[in-house]
This record gives sequence, C-alpha cells and structure tokens, in this order.
Amino acid sequence: MTDVSGLSIGILGGTGDQGKGLARRFALAGHRVLIGSRSEQRAQDAAGDIGSGATGGANAAVAAEADIVIVAVPYEGHKALLESLRAELTGKIVVDCVNPLGFDKQGAYALPVEEGSAAQQAAAVLTESRVVAAFHHVSAVLLMDPAVEKVDLDVLVLGDDREATDTVQALAEVIPGVRGVYGGRLRNSHQIEALTANIISVNRRYKAHAGLRITDI
Amino acid sequence: MTDVSGLSIGILGGTGDQGKGLARRFALAGHRVLIGSRSEQRAQDAAGDIGSGATGGANAAVAAEADIVIVAVPYEGHKALLESLRAELTGKIVVDCVNPLGFDKQGAYALPVEEGSAAQQAAAVLTESRVVAAFHHVSAVLLMDPAVEKVDLDVLVLGDDREATDTVQALAEVIPGVRGVYGGRLRNSHQIEALTANIISVNRRYKAHAGLRITDI
Repeated sequence: MTDVSGLSIGILGGTGDQGKGLARRFALAGHRVLIGSRSEQRAQDAAGDIGSGATGGANAAVAAEADIVIVAVPYEGHKALLESLRAELTGKIVVDCVNPLGFDKQGAYALPVEEGSAAQQAAAVLTESRVVAAFHHVSAVLLMDPAVEKVDLDVLVLGDDREATDTVQALAEVIPGVRGVYGGRLRNSHQIEALTANIISVNRRYKAHAGLRITDI
Repeated sequence: MTDVSGLSIGILGGTGDQGKGLARRFALAGHRVLIGSRSEQRAQDAAGDIGSGATGGANAAVAAEADIVIVAVPYEGHKALLESLRAELTGKIVVDCVNPLGFDKQGAYALPVEEGSAAQQAAAVLTESRVVAAFHHVSAVLLMDPAVEKVDLDVLVLGDDREATDTVQALAEVIPGVRGVYGGRLRNSHQIEALTANIISVNRRYKAHAGLRITDI
C-alpha cells in the first residue's frame, strides 16, 4: 500500500457537504487539510468547524499549496474553476468526485457531459495533471457524524495512471472502514458518477445512507 | 415480499452464459424455466444441460408461454428481437438484463444507446409490457458453479412500475444469497448497465468474480 501519511490534502469546494465531510475525516486521520472556496472567509469558517488543524483559503491558494487536490465543487462551476487553476494543478494528483446530477420531482438523474463525465472533463482541461475519479458515493451525513466511527463503504477509484490510483486508494483507506478499490479507467467514470442518482433512489426508498461494497475481493 | 413461487420464467437468449446461469438457479429453486433461442435445437440442448425440468424452444414460443420473460440476448440483436415479440410480450413483466458494452485492448466500455439504455430501449419498443431492468451484474461463472451455494450479490432492480419491481426483487431472492434491491427508475438504468464494464475491470485487477452489495439497508 502506498504511504500517504505525509501528504497534505486540498479540497476545492470544501465548504460543501461532500467536501467538508471528507475534510473532516482526513484531518482526523492526521493529514494537513486545506479547505478551498471562492470565499476565503467561508473557507476559514468551514476549517474552524472541522478543527484538527484544518485551514481555509481561496481555491487558487489551496490548489497551489496542497500535495493532492480533491475537487468537490458543484458541477455547474466545475469546468470554469479547473480552467482557472491549470497552472496551480500542474503535476499534481487531482481527485475529481463531482457528480453531474439533475433533480426533478421524480428524484435524481444523470446529466449528460460532453466529455463523457466530470472526471474526463477535468482530464481534458488539466492536461498536465494526474486526474483520478473517486469518492463519489460517500455520504456527507455519515462523514460528518461524530457517532459514526467506521464508514461501511468501498470507494471506487478510477484512472489511467496506476501510481496515482494507488495513491488515492491508500488515501481512501485512511477513513476508518473504507476500502479503496480500483474501479477501472477514466473512460468508465461516467457510470460511477451517475450511480449516485441510484444511491439517492435507494436512500429514499429504504430511508438509508447507502453505500457500496464490492464482493469477492 | 411478493409471492413468485408459481411463476414460470422464460429466458430469451437463454443459451448464453448469463441467461443459462440464471436459468439454472431459477430451475433449482423450483420454477418452471423455458429457455429461448433463435435455434429451437440449441435451446433444447441448453435446457438439457440445465436439467431440473427446464425446457427449450424458439424465442417467440417462450415469450408467449412464460409468465415472466427475461431478456438476456447480446445487445446487437436486442432491439430487433423485441420488435418481433411485441405481441407475445404484451401485458407481461419483461426483465431486461442486457449490458451494451464494447471491448478493446483496454478492456470493456459502455456503448451509447439512443434511448439511454438497453432497458429504456426495451420500454420504447414494448409499450404494452412492464419493463424492469435487473440482473446486470450476476457472474455467469458463479451461477453455473455447483460448488457455489450462495451468491454474494445484491441485484439492483429498476423500473417505473412498483408492482413489477417488487415482483422482480422477489424473483432475485429465490437465488440463495441474493437480495433484490430497488435501484431507481428506468431512466437511471444506463449507469447500472454500464457499471458492468467497471466490474469487469475489477475482476481483471483483482482476479475475482466481483459483485455489489448495498450497505445500510
């Protein structure tokens, strides 16, 4: 297993539920966590909520400083944000966990993405970064809940760079209970993002915070 | 749980691996199973392999006779076959388990489907049937293996007709070890079909016959 213990983690969109939940778990595991936001003040407020030494800053500053950068922004602003951070993200592992979803009265559904998926969109924009897709199905509620010690979830990690996917699998496993499982190449990330719509359907039907486990591995 | 014990199960494409594996498990569970194929002879040969009272016939005869019809044909012939069976399938629960996938030297990938998914294509063709999507991720190897008593898998069942999805969930559960889990509306079936490409990637990386389990339900 790749040693990720010394790596600092930047989270763009770290003031949203998904980003904040991940930030909390990485900070609890001893990582230096940098929360990014369009608003430096909101980032600092979120970092204060999280504690464990997390700090907040503008997205560009966080992107430049962190060893690994997680992208947890709403899909609407995804492409424009990454276009603005090409220089800061050069050479880095960028972990995209964005789920392009729409919602109507029948629930959630997958939005079409010209590049195929949010992760492929990131890779198309960030040609000098090492883009990995992961953390799509984490439950923000469970990540934030102090009563939840272990999260019963396999994080599927997708990408075309083996060293990068190995690193992100190891990073996923710093969250107690989580396994990082290789889930295929980046071209197969659309369905992993879209699957979040099904998980939302499961959550509604069963009143749950559903996750996935992969059997036989 | 819906009582499915008296229902006969027809499997179109029942001579393929996925269809044959399902046929075997339903026959073992005591269901009358009708294997369908373009070739009546090949259907009868497959039924002979399966035993437990399974019978074989041409696809049209099986579609007309069975209470529930499972569609397990290759994607290439999917639409044309269903167009030819509209009358036979009227009023029935039709369970689509087709995975539209392509393969190249990098492995499997999802094929685009004009209607969104194979299941939605089935629903578009079979406007008088009750189309449900399910059984995409079953491992034919495990279903066929006499040493495998329990299959460690949640079968995701998708559809817009609650009674039909309830029935198919119950049907999934006649296979020992399997849970039938509601997985959303038919419009969210593309990613469930496409996810089979990721499962193939997992199988290659981990030398496994991977399945899914949904946690917290």
